[in-house]
Amino acid sequence: MIIVLKPNPDEEQLNKLKSWLADINLGIYMSEGTQSTLMGLIGDTSSVDVDLIMALDIVEDVKRIQEPYKYASRKSHSLDTVISVGGAKIGGGNFMLIAGPCCVESREQVCSIAASVKESGANVLRGGAFKPRTSPYTFQGLRDGGILLMLEAKRESGLPIVSEIMDLSQLPLFENVDIIQVGARSMQNFELLKEIGKIKKPVLLKRGMANTIQELLMSAEHIMAGGNEEIILCERGIRTFETATRNTLDLSAIPVIKELSHLPVLVDPSHSTGIARYIHPMSLAAVAVGADGLIIEVHNNPSIAMCDGQQSITPAAFAKLSFEIAKLLSLLKELRQ
Amino acid sequence: MIIVLKPNPDEEQLNKLKSWLADINLGIYMSEGTQSTLMGLIGDTSSVDVDLIMALDIVEDVKRIQEPYKYASRKSHSLDTVISVGGAKIGGGNFMLIAGPCCVESREQVCSIAASVKESGANVLRGGAFKPRTSPYTFQGLRDGGILLMLEAKRESGLPIVSEIMDLSQLPLFENVDIIQVGARSMQNFELLKEIGKIKKPVLLKRGMANTIQELLMSAEHIMAGGNEEIILCERGIRTFETATRNTLDLSAIPVIKELSHLPVLVDPSHSTGIARYIHPMSLAAVAVGADGLIIEVHNNPSIAMCDGQQSITPAAFAKLSFEIAKLLSLLKELRQ
Amino acid sequence: MIIVLKPNPDEEQLNKLKSWLADINLGIYMSEGTQSTLMGLIGDTSSVDVDLIMALDIVEDVKRIQEPYKYASRKSHSLDTVISVGGAKIGGGNFMLIAGPCCVESREQVCSIAASVKESGANVLRGGAFKPRTSPYTFQGLRDGGILLMLEAKRESGLPIVSEIMDLSQLPLFENVDIIQVGARSMQNFELLKEIGKIKKPVLLKRGMANTIQELLMSAEHIMAGGNEEIILCERGIRTFETATRNTLDLSAIPVIKELSHLPVLVDPSHSTGIARYIHPMSLAAVAVGADGLIIEVHNNPSIAMCDGQQSITPAAFAKLSFEIAKLLSLLKELRQ
Amino acid sequence: MIIVLKPNPDEEQLNKLKSWLADINLGIYMSEGTQSTLMGLIGDTSSVDVDLIMALDIVEDVKRIQEPYKYASRKSHSLDTVISVGGAKIGGGNFMLIAGPCCVESREQVCSIAASVKESGANVLRGGAFKPRTSPYTFQGLRDGGILLMLEAKRESGLPIVSEIMDLSQLPLFENVDIIQVGARSMQNFELLKEIGKIKKPVLLKRGMANTIQELLMSAEHIMAGGNEEIILCERGIRTFETATRNTLDLSAIPVIKELSHLPVLVDPSHSTGIARYIHPMSLAAVAVGADGLIIEVHNNPSIAMCDGQQSITPAAFAKLSFEIAKLLSLLKELRQ
Repeated sequence: MIIVLKPNPDEEQLNKLKSWLADINLGIYMSEGTQSTLMGLIGDTSSVDVDLIMALDIVEDVKRIQEPYKYASRKSHSLDTVISVGGAKIGGGNFMLIAGPCCVESREQVCSIAASVKESGANVLRGGAFKPRTSPYTFQGLRDGGILLMLEAKRESGLPIVSEIMDLSQLPLFENVDIIQVGARSMQNFELLKEIGKIKKPVLLKRGMANTIQELLMSAEHIMAGGNEEIILCERGIRTFETATRNTLDLSAIPVIKELSHLPVLVDPSHSTGIARYIHPMSLAAVAVGADGLIIEVHNNPSIAMCDGQQSITPAAFAKLSFEIAKLLSLLKELRQ
Repeated sequence: MIIVLKPNPDEEQLNKLKSWLADINLGIYMSEGTQSTLMGLIGDTSSVDVDLIMALDIVEDVKRIQEPYKYASRKSHSLDTVISVGGAKIGGGNFMLIAGPCCVESREQVCSIAASVKESGANVLRGGAFKPRTSPYTFQGLRDGGILLMLEAKRESGLPIVSEIMDLSQLPLFENVDIIQVGARSMQNFELLKEIGKIKKPVLLKRGMANTIQELLMSAEHIMAGGNEEIILCERGIRTFETATRNTLDLSAIPVIKELSHLPVLVDPSHSTGIARYIHPMSLAAVAVGADGLIIEVHNNPSIAMCDGQQSITPAAFAKLSFEIAKLLSLLKELRQ
Repeated sequence: MIIVLKPNPDEEQLNKLKSWLADINLGIYMSEGTQSTLMGLIGDTSSVDVDLIMALDIVEDVKRIQEPYKYASRKSHSLDTVISVGGAKIGGGNFMLIAGPCCVESREQVCSIAASVKESGANVLRGGAFKPRTSPYTFQGLRDGGILLMLEAKRESGLPIVSEIMDLSQLPLFENVDIIQVGARSMQNFELLKEIGKIKKPVLLKRGMANTIQELLMSAEHIMAGGNEEIILCERGIRTFETATRNTLDLSAIPVIKELSHLPVLVDPSHSTGIARYIHPMSLAAVAVGADGLIIEVHNNPSIAMCDGQQSITPAAFAKLSFEIAKLLSLLKELRQ
Repeated sequence: MIIVLKPNPDEEQLNKLKSWLADINLGIYMSEGTQSTLMGLIGDTSSVDVDLIMALDIVEDVKRIQEPYKYASRKSHSLDTVISVGGAKIGGGNFMLIAGPCCVESREQVCSIAASVKESGANVLRGGAFKPRTSPYTFQGLRDGGILLMLEAKRESGLPIVSEIMDLSQLPLFENVDIIQVGARSMQNFELLKEIGKIKKPVLLKRGMANTIQELLMSAEHIMAGGNEEIILCERGIRTFETATRNTLDLSAIPVIKELSHLPVLVDPSHSTGIARYIHPMSLAAVAVGADGLIIEVHNNPSIAMCDGQQSITPAAFAKLSFEIAKLLSLLKELRQ
């Protein structure tokens, strides 16, 4: 971290700052130029609050060199993290293909979709029980009952399952859910992140629609600081001025994240585009760019889905897509050898 | 709501759609043009899920005419809502001036700031006990203890208080807090909104940094649908590409909101700009544009504030600002007569 | 187009509107509902100025059904447009691989890069002579001399060339340039677009960094309305809040554009990311998503490039990338059969 | 400027960098820390191309301390610049009120609006002759004829005039136009900026809808570097995800610009909101925040304006607004004494 001081800083304030920095075990080297004086900080600055320093009268600017996260950083863990759930793995060359309905609607619906996507190559089942909906007047999910149906589908299909949590009071319900999903709107629900940090269970952490990659990694850090290091990151589109798609899928985030962090990252082409017919091309692009997995909404009858039917594909379309994903993965593996 | 059908829609699907619309008590009028057939829906469409209709094979597009919210709409309530807490009022020509520290740090700190801002004209005290922080390594607030200190400052100063809630499990602690603040990151924490809808207490609902005005009103609707109609909206800046200020304060949102809704709306110039020296001009702009109030961070010693000192002004600067706000409000009142 | 009238519209104004619409050969059908009256317009509404209608006192809202462009629309031209330059083709299954330096710096530089990228599979050479630079104090390109060097490189390598125009007064210089590039900052330089519409020469039209897909198609329409129909569109990243990459590459734009328009579209992974090491993965993603081509910055010595070296790859890296692109294209062709 | 080197930088490359920096007259001080080595540059770094340095293999990051502009910076010119046209002044406490039609349509139209806005307090007349329109099918302005009508209105009313230029070939037509407007879409038309830098005439430079404040100042620098220092900056709204208004008016830009630069800055509430009824409140907010002027669209009959009637107010509404602006300015002057 570099602190740029204003010209002729007050001696007393400067000494206070120096002794505070020494107290938190940071070394200091001063560089006095003609226009400004720089203080370089040596040591672990990830816990330094930049805003506190910026508020000082004697400080012109503060520039970070080191990242503000530790556990999530590739610098602290150079090898890819591999996470296993049931038979499925993600990271370090393992691809996770998650599929299933946006909302759990009934036993038959979720079990038949589960059987069908497993047959086509999915290795994890998704299904929403608690649904964040912009309007209080639309279907809000089957809630507790939805989780029970997901557990039945897990037993029947043998697939591990992932479902979204919306409040920390729901945590006990997720005991047998294999991966807890923290949705885009909860990415900065720090109370929830802290609680999830205390348990041992893989977490699928989605990027908020207005959050930077650094903020996503900071949210992962909130969980990891509690002791739970099994985080799967997820790019699901950010909010921009373009309205042709629901959000703008930021695929550049994948190589950026893989450089900054050792955590696996997957892509959600359903929520990002919001339109079923763009899922196929965006999924192939996600694979080509190096994502570690995909999470795709599949519905046996999108036209009568209780939510988000517009962004779900049929089991037949999923089977075709899954076949092409496998071909593409195999080509990429060949090229990387 | 207008449904634009694709050319030559399947008869059976069309009949299904018609009978479903009739079931939810909507009238239909069909307009057949040469290029497309339109279905106009008559009745209350606020609970119609646009995405469900968009997912139908026979539908080209759906266009809303009516707003998707009812209780929050000015159409359902033409007069301005006025909300009273302690002696302070907001809405319908009443201006609420909220001031106080970003974080509660100690008894002396919060009580001395309270006394000072009251003296300068503030009529509500703010102070954060639970603090959402991007980093897990920075000060997270005094939590329960911070609420207790706010209650002491309330007793001592006589000012009503507002503080932020971060999780619904904290609700019991807020029993004697006069206004519950739902922060920008919680604006779409729908579980929290639903619980707050069940109690009777004014809510200060901040706009999320990537949320539209319509989404803000939909979040108010979530609370109002539960029975709690005392919502104070708050514009606090949105995230854009500009980095000169922390967020971009969207002051156009004020006249837009006042047209669409009867709810009072205030402006937070501290979080939006993130820089103390811009608070004064942005506060005057907010008053001039017609905001019903302001919420301003004041700290007795911004340089040693435990959080967000960079965006806090001193009690002296607040006194000067408060004086100018009063002058400006009085001019505007004169001009509106 | 649907015009939503306010309740009880003034008869006289309504009649004026009706006769104006009739004058521009639009049919009208009225639908009177209980809450609002709709006017549906029949005929070619692409030249109707929505803002003019919105300004009328009796109008509540105007909603477009038809697109505001004609020549660029796939509805007017269902087959993919194929554009040929030299031996290279783009569109309808033909892939164009454009490579070369950001700035032309010297004869040797551009000729050696040309030979090398041709060897690796590029079929068009790029090179900037006129360079739009944010600062007046950095290298602004060799200008006229740069175009002459590009023409030499064309003769020597046999590759067709593309270069950016910055003002319509430069048009005569581009007589032997095979493709005229209109840069992102000029996408809405309508005077330039109109002049380019009068000549017969392929145009590479880049999307502005804050422009929607619809605006990109409207800019193509400006050129096409003049008679020049050989437009190659280019996605090069949009401006968002994310700063990890220079812009956010919007790959979803590719399937959206291919649905709305018959024009070929290519991707610029160099300017969008701004960082050399992300070009490889983003290029593969662009191919996988269905782009008709790529435009990539290659420099023999990125470390001493006179501009944008940070986003250029070496000839060796380009050769490897080109090999992988060919493999991927061949897999996709196999899958599409 | 601070250059952060990668660990163990190659000696030869480092020496090259040092001698290049010395060649452009920059002093260097090195600071070697345990994690990274910093190079601080002493001297005028405004002409240093950050991208060139970033492209070097040995460089980790480059951080600017000094601004990349000189003439536009308040550091080079601490007093406010005051610009005079006809009897009107802007800057240093002088307020410029510009009003007139979006498009010049006819002699009577522009002359009658001119007379009326002058009567109400405007001191400059605006009127568009060359109109940038997204669609090639809508009214494109009277062009040369429009400029002639503006000159007639100038003679008749005695008001100085401002009109937009769209291409540098139009410059001779602007000889008797008092202020040349460079529109938002031309803010980075660098060829145009360079030509305008060579003449002596005030320029109204609008911020592009996706441009940062720094980029606006860099565009001013392009003009000033040529010798023309009479630049009036204009905030006219930026593009964000919010669609309730055409653009998001960034009023925080006013105090930011006044801190960074000595140039006067005005606000365009018409184009930013795009909706006539928001012009009044946004204008008052712009005055309160400290803008040096306003540019407002006024039309004698907005319902039949040939362009942008939706965002124009009537002469009567302008008179009321102008009266309130004067009252507000007088209050602010009183408070600043």
